[in-house]
Amino acid sequence: MKLTILGCYSATPRVDTNPTAQVLDIRNHLFLIDCGEGTQIQLRRFKIKFSRIKHIFISHLHGDHFFGLVGLISSFRLLGREKELHIYGPKGIKEAITLQLKLGSSWTNYPLLFHELESDNPELIYEDEKVSVHTIPLDHRVYTNGFLFREKEGDRKLDIDAVKKAKIDMSYYQKIKQGYDVQNEEGKLIKNKEITLDPAPSRSYAYCSDTAYFPEIIDQIKRVTWLYHESTFLESHEHLCERTKHSTAGQAARIAKEANVNTLILGHYSTRYSSLELFREEAYQIFDSVELAEDGKVFEI
Amino acid sequence: MKLTILGCYSATPRVDTNPTAQVLDIRNHLFLIDCGEGTQIQLRRFKIKFSRIKHIFISHLHGDHFFGLVGLISSFRLLGREKELHIYGPKGIKEAITLQLKLGSSWTNYPLLFHELESDNPELIYEDEKVSVHTIPLDHRVYTNGFLFREKEGDRKLDIDAVKKAKIDMSYYQKIKQGYDVQNEEGKLIKNKEITLDPAPSRSYAYCSDTAYFPEIIDQIKRVTWLYHESTFLESHEHLCERTKHSTAGQAARIAKEANVNTLILGHYSTRYSSLELFREEAYQIFDSVELAEDGKVFEI
Repeated sequence: MKLTILGCYSATPRVDTNPTAQVLDIRNHLFLIDCGEGTQIQLRRFKIKFSRIKHIFISHLHGDHFFGLVGLISSFRLLGREKELHIYGPKGIKEAITLQLKLGSSWTNYPLLFHELESDNPELIYEDEKVSVHTIPLDHRVYTNGFLFREKEGDRKLDIDAVKKAKIDMSYYQKIKQGYDVQNEEGKLIKNKEITLDPAPSRSYAYCSDTAYFPEIIDQIKRVTWLYHESTFLESHEHLCERTKHSTAGQAARIAKEANVNTLILGHYSTRYSSLELFREEAYQIFDSVELAEDGKVFEI
Repeated sequence: MKLTILGCYSATPRVDTNPTAQVLDIRNHLFLIDCGEGTQIQLRRFKIKFSRIKHIFISHLHGDHFFGLVGLISSFRLLGREKELHIYGPKGIKEAITLQLKLGSSWTNYPLLFHELESDNPELIYEDEKVSVHTIPLDHRVYTNGFLFREKEGDRKLDIDAVKKAKIDMSYYQKIKQGYDVQNEEGKLIKNKEITLDPAPSRSYAYCSDTAYFPEIIDQIKRVTWLYHESTFLESHEHLCERTKHSTAGQAARIAKEANVNTLILGHYSTRYSSLELFREEAYQIFDSVELAEDGKVFEI
């Protein structure tokens, strides 16, 4: 699992700071999460292969999270894309994009499929044999979802020494990996647990931006590998959170602690602060595994 | 008159090339012409004071000329703008922008005024005591206008030696500048021409992008100071012009020559060519005053 931060600042794009966009590389999927203005330039800058993106997840329809989407969709057309592209985002996103394509007589020549979201409860919005994606309803000024990406648990691993010792025919190996008890050559039933090891732990990523402090999400994101939680402000500006429906670094850390996540990644910073280290320091008072998102930074596990 | 090129490449934005946008500084106006994705970042990069822009002219609704507009409008709001902003562009531009602002519950808190264009004939779309702006209907795949910015001719200048020699009372000076003949202290009528000099020549800028070779514009742009004419291709790719409705550098030069303009500025280059000098060389075979637009370049007269 690899996460590339294309942009992690709030509000307006600037020369050296980019609005929200990130790419999650998980089990051979390249998922694009949010798409602020200039995202396609950031994809080029960090040499991410455009054509591998088949699914784009948009949290909400504020400009710093989606004004780059129509440009990316158009560039896919100019680059000769043929593969389907799936867009998941709040109701209204389809009209906003298709109206602009229509005005420019620039329909895509590849299938562009919208999956509009409007539920206030977590929903399974994508699933295959390797991963699942659920929405995480958040608390922001407009309808907003975070997204929970989760690897499916793989097969159990053969404990090859134990299998040989138990004298089990090779033809049973596939069944064993799937968790079944099997008979050995002598007709004795061998418990699966005695001849297998646990599968590699499944990794998960919870993306939560933008949102006010919202403990309702804790149950859903319990023990995720990575939690990206917005921290627009420091606690010195906590009074701004109520009106703007954003969080402080301290609030993000409280969510991470309660949810017992592996690592908290902070982002969506206001540009008013002199140093990103201030965010880490504040969160670290509450939770001890804190990383800072930065434009261009890559997280890998 | 000062022209800053923010972006002058066609199609998709890349790390080192920007889609079309430029700022014309003329008689204390800062006119923004076209607004591809990332224009607000380019405005910051070249330290152009956002707040001085009151009028934005959009030639057509292809993404590389207008996908940056909604972001700029939103940033004006975040930056606390109070002054009116006027947008001139093809019919449909208002719906495209307002729909996106509505979806983000991000109405501007300053007056945002749209002037939608749909005529196929040149129209006067802006005028004050110093400048006028007319549309220049162009020939592209979608409805497209260029824009002709023209300083108004100033007052005639007093030839102060001649005025004194002719013994004319100071109270007549204003009338003289306005072009009137006046009586001198001896009651003799003095011809205006004998006591004045021509005003400073009025400068003009014709922006013509995107367009196929379209000689119909020549009459309207006769003798302009600067003509920006798109040159997406070189003549080696002239066969692409018919379908895409773009021009070659040679065609741009033919327009410049027929219109007898002062200087031709080329731009809207396809990124397929190894060097911009190829565009200049091609145009120079036909017309001898050729400049190349480049991102960040400033033209001043």
